[in-house]
Amino acid sequence: MPDIARLLWPRSVAVIGASPDTDGLRGRILLVMKGHPFAGPIYPVSRSHAEVQGLKAYPSVAELPAGVDLAVLIIPAKYVPEELERCGKAGIGAAIILSSGFAEETGRAGAALQDEVRAITRRYDMAVCGPNGEGFVNTAAALAPTFSPVMEAGAIPLLPPASRGQVAVVAQSGGMAFAFYDRGRPKQLAFRYIVTTGNEAGLETFDLVDYMLDEGKTDVFLLLIEDVKTVATFERVAAKALRAGKPLIIAKLGQSEAGSRAVLAHTAAVAGSQAAYRALFARYGAIESNDLDEMVDIAQGFVNFGSRLPAGRRVGICTSSGGGGAWAADACAAAGLDVPELDAATRATIDVYLPSYGTSQNPVDVTAQAVHQRGYAEFAQLVAGSPAVDGVIVVVTGRSPRLLLRDRERLESLARETTKPIFMWSYTQPADVCLEMMSEAGYPLFTSVHHCAHTLRAMADYRSARERST
Amino acid sequence: MPDIARLLWPRSVAVIGASPDTDGLRGRILLVMKGHPFAGPIYPVSRSHAEVQGLKAYPSVAELPAGVDLAVLIIPAKYVPEELERCGKAGIGAAIILSSGFAEETGRAGAALQDEVRAITRRYDMAVCGPNGEGFVNTAAALAPTFSPVMEAGAIPLLPPASRGQVAVVAQSGGMAFAFYDRGRPKQLAFRYIVTTGNEAGLETFDLVDYMLDEGKTDVFLLLIEDVKTVATFERVAAKALRAGKPLIIAKLGQSEAGSRAVLAHTAAVAGSQAAYRALFARYGAIESNDLDEMVDIAQGFVNFGSRLPAGRRVGICTSSGGGGAWAADACAAAGLDVPELDAATRATIDVYLPSYGTSQNPVDVTAQAVHQRGYAEFAQLVAGSPAVDGVIVVVTGRSPRLLLRDRERLESLARETTKPIFMWSYTQPADVCLEMMSEAGYPLFTSVHHCAHTLRAMADYRSARERST
Repeated sequence: MPDIARLLWPRSVAVIGASPDTDGLRGRILLVMKGHPFAGPIYPVSRSHAEVQGLKAYPSVAELPAGVDLAVLIIPAKYVPEELERCGKAGIGAAIILSSGFAEETGRAGAALQDEVRAITRRYDMAVCGPNGEGFVNTAAALAPTFSPVMEAGAIPLLPPASRGQVAVVAQSGGMAFAFYDRGRPKQLAFRYIVTTGNEAGLETFDLVDYMLDEGKTDVFLLLIEDVKTVATFERVAAKALRAGKPLIIAKLGQSEAGSRAVLAHTAAVAGSQAAYRALFARYGAIESNDLDEMVDIAQGFVNFGSRLPAGRRVGICTSSGGGGAWAADACAAAGLDVPELDAATRATIDVYLPSYGTSQNPVDVTAQAVHQRGYAEFAQLVAGSPAVDGVIVVVTGRSPRLLLRDRERLESLARETTKPIFMWSYTQPADVCLEMMSEAGYPLFTSVHHCAHTLRAMADYRSARERST
Repeated sequence: MPDIARLLWPRSVAVIGASPDTDGLRGRILLVMKGHPFAGPIYPVSRSHAEVQGLKAYPSVAELPAGVDLAVLIIPAKYVPEELERCGKAGIGAAIILSSGFAEETGRAGAALQDEVRAITRRYDMAVCGPNGEGFVNTAAALAPTFSPVMEAGAIPLLPPASRGQVAVVAQSGGMAFAFYDRGRPKQLAFRYIVTTGNEAGLETFDLVDYMLDEGKTDVFLLLIEDVKTVATFERVAAKALRAGKPLIIAKLGQSEAGSRAVLAHTAAVAGSQAAYRALFARYGAIESNDLDEMVDIAQGFVNFGSRLPAGRRVGICTSSGGGGAWAADACAAAGLDVPELDAATRATIDVYLPSYGTSQNPVDVTAQAVHQRGYAEFAQLVAGSPAVDGVIVVVTGRSPRLLLRDRERLESLARETTKPIFMWSYTQPADVCLEMMSEAGYPLFTSVHHCAHTLRAMADYRSARERST
């Protein structure tokens, strides 16, 4: 097995095909890398320039200084095998191949090139991502060998807050990999790795997941796959992830006929039977979803409450909007969750605070009036305390920070102390300050009530899967 | 039938129970109204103040100047019947009752009060919204008798661009009604009315829709109902809407057991059988959805392409991201749409522009390279021209405006000239400038691929329903 640490944590990086033209992909990748404070040296390899974007360039791989762990190849497909061979000979242990034109092509030439790549990769035991990938990002190392426009320098802060659970993305599609990042960052998800694997001639998705599990720093995985090339690897790694309590949230593309056509043309993946994949995922507690935002939302749920998974599927709903409570109840039912009436003791405690037109039944409609008087936290805590429920959804409006800010301290201590997950659904678009505050307090703030319910369901199912597997 | 014009287009408005305390609801409603440039006079009615928030106050309804069409009642429930009676006697033709504590209460007293309200409403033939509502907004009149925090002065521009199709929201839940507005405004939806109907003791949802259809200015309806109180009204109005080609997009709350409990407690609605409602909606081509954002997205689809509904369910997908194309294809299949291979002639025309690793099959993966060279519009136009498809989904990244802005003029002329709907799905979070540009150009820009596919499906079904009904 190649050493994936040399890929993701290289001492130094060579960029083969680097160009001064930052409008093209060959120039942009260097620009993106230089835009982040990676500690090691970056060596452009260029036959035609002595210097590229202010960095000393080397005419060939053979002339590179010692200690290069990673080669980034962005050259026409037909030149890739010979350059990769040179990297292997030079002792470079890892490579990413960004070029397209391999097995995803309709002709045989691309497939033959990819076979060559695979053979070289094996011969030198190199850790190779691609071909036809979009590179990767290691946020903790501030290393971004990718031309994804999402990673353009300064666009998004790279480093995650140290205290948060960390998320890794591994995806065969570059566009989708960075779309997870793009959608998760405004929700304060802390991304550790984003890795695109393309055609997977060398490393497969679950080889990378395996490394990250062993490293022990990643808490939640967002995976987009077009096929599982080696089922035995999936099974071994998925079992390890389940034992470790690190959820795999997976989108499997190519479920339809046209989707299968598309993944074959995209990464030469053979989509396979949807039912077979579903059964395989379920066996190892992997969480399937077909929606970018939902996957990010499920990750948020686990990051905040992964250590306090719901013991069952019974939900308490606490709302200041009667319509919002009814909507949440319907969404829970659609997600296969129960919304039982609360026990009499809890109801009696809540009833003391409600006006005559509120109700403690469940959904608990505390009314706008009571929320204005007492805030959300107190009611959420009372509902969470009911023996009738395993988790709580609080229906809030995050548009105006007034109420949430006033309630901040009690919300924070509730997030720390609750033994059951407490989710917030905002029926208005939350203000940035509310998103930040709720995230810092330790709550996922959902804008989709269905994602909120699905996340609770996924977490309850995940707990069952872990209990079954031990 | 009462005159709904006096409710929605009053010459002047009295606010009964208005208060100087803008922290409370009784003060906030006046503050919100004053924050918008309604042309007519606003008269606070207050026993204890001669002036409220700088406006001359009147001690009683009887002493109000002539010409008041609308009374806003925000007083304790038990005083509502006598004040409403005074309004009727004074010739005030319309009222909104914001107070809670009517039939939604568990005891009998509230129901009895609501019966009184209904009787007075009928006796004076008044157009009454509520009780237990949150008021309404008429953006064209800059009139906002509501305490919804979403409508706080200056928070959101009221007037829609004159050229756009206009949308009306009618909802039993105040929170949800303004949530539609809150979510639709960033997507440039032009809202004409937002009306909350609460317990519907007087006017029902479809009475209001009927008025708006006759007025002829509203193109799309977003409706949230907890029950249909008078089925005959629904049938008459829904048939009228279908004839006029004005889609009704409906969320029906209370579909689950807990949801039914919630709507009974919320507006005393009897939720009824989900299957019966579904059949009723389908008979009149009403579009059902259970998701706030999806409903807004469907409205966007109709606003832009309502006059060019897809003739069938066949979709062409045009993408620069292979993974994004596969995802869109799977989403189309899940929504019951077909993604057939394109005809040979169209493929041959497209193939000229594609690198060897692109494909014209459908999804058409034009590759990032070809999109950088030629933009999105040209490929979208070629795909739309194929006789094999009835509509097009273009997979874009709206995060960076570079590509879309460069392509702007051709995108604008394509939107004007296409006879088939062309939808954009951005797999990254679109920048505000892209949202605005695409909206001005006449495209809905979806961030959820599933909403994108559901909207195309809903529009194809709507066309079928119209054809069946004629």
